[in-house]
Amino acid sequence: MKKIGVVLSGCGVYDGSEIHEAVFTLLAIDRAGCEAVCMAPDIELNVVNHLTTEASGEKRNVLHESARIARGNIADIKTVKATELDAVILPGGFGAAKNLSDFAVKGSAATVNGEVARLLRDMYEAKKPIGAVCIAPALLAALFGKELSPTVTIGNDAGTAAEIDKTGAKHQECPVTGFVVDRENRIVTSPAYMLANRISEVCDGVDNCVKELIKLI
Amino acid sequence: MKKIGVVLSGCGVYDGSEIHEAVFTLLAIDRAGCEAVCMAPDIELNVVNHLTTEASGEKRNVLHESARIARGNIADIKTVKATELDAVILPGGFGAAKNLSDFAVKGSAATVNGEVARLLRDMYEAKKPIGAVCIAPALLAALFGKELSPTVTIGNDAGTAAEIDKTGAKHQECPVTGFVVDRENRIVTSPAYMLANRISEVCDGVDNCVKELIKLI
Repeated sequence: MKKIGVVLSGCGVYDGSEIHEAVFTLLAIDRAGCEAVCMAPDIELNVVNHLTTEASGEKRNVLHESARIARGNIADIKTVKATELDAVILPGGFGAAKNLSDFAVKGSAATVNGEVARLLRDMYEAKKPIGAVCIAPALLAALFGKELSPTVTIGNDAGTAAEIDKTGAKHQECPVTGFVVDRENRIVTSPAYMLANRISEVCDGVDNCVKELIKLI
Repeated sequence: MKKIGVVLSGCGVYDGSEIHEAVFTLLAIDRAGCEAVCMAPDIELNVVNHLTTEASGEKRNVLHESARIARGNIADIKTVKATELDAVILPGGFGAAKNLSDFAVKGSAATVNGEVARLLRDMYEAKKPIGAVCIAPALLAALFGKELSPTVTIGNDAGTAAEIDKTGAKHQECPVTGFVVDRENRIVTSPAYMLANRISEVCDGVDNCVKELIKLI
């Protein structure tokens, strides 16, 4: 059974993984007959109250909160090697841009969490495919933009697309249930909640993206 | 557009709503062309660390945590009237048995949160259907067992089924993607993670349960 790594960044769109995107990623992997291997870094996040969208001043642990989505079946990313996986995917949510990287603050000058960067570089070197949805493709641009100039999508948000282009990556517009494949770099990306107005659009877009990711294995 | 109330109890299987069940409930409602109206009580919960499954000693707010699943689009249940809804459904997770009721501690002698009880009684009186999945049917048994003797399912767990029977309700065994309909009382229930071994089974069971709930409107 093919093993697909799922890199989570917390539990909730404003300070972690977008929950619907993460759940539909796990669903699509199961429906495709593959096994999801959930992981997250053991670092702190700054809590946002999801009722008010304001920072609460509280800190929580990214690995512990991600474990909510994974029902406890999750590893510290530092223990996961690329040799154990056939592919890897990053759901979206602000956690991808605030916890796994600092793209939300630094845009094209963002850096990526060391363990996330290590795993993604090792996957690339091993010619194993990488997927990302919603804002997470910006993390791939920050990591690989200069070296690989990958083509990715976050939908059609002009400001975010401009920051992605500044990294050296190439942004390509894409409709909500579609995806963009960079075959040379084995990278597949899809807009999800960067464009979606309905939860069913997110489910369809993520499902299409995961299916394409698995085809690239 | 039909409005389906979704009563949440936090965000995470061990101290709130089971996330996959809640997300698939929202998905099924959208796919059926209806509108989900998310709600939760403004009360405290006792946090469980989902990596270790141990109590952390921390408190969080049920409404604020539920807002993570609802992406902020959620109401305090005390503001929601049965007249505004066409049906209501409760996803599972320990939150249904620890926050919305005390079934996890008191079994058949459990009582139900006042606002949850008020809304469910008003829905019943208005002949509007009620759905519940996973452990949440036990809450319906605790609330309605003596008066209505409803037939419900939580799958096949003997201990939980015995507690449900003690309330005056009748437990009926059911496979993971099936559901049990009590047509007289307009109550539909399904086992979800009380039986499921795979996330896709949960998606299918919840989808079938929501479709039947909507047929009962």
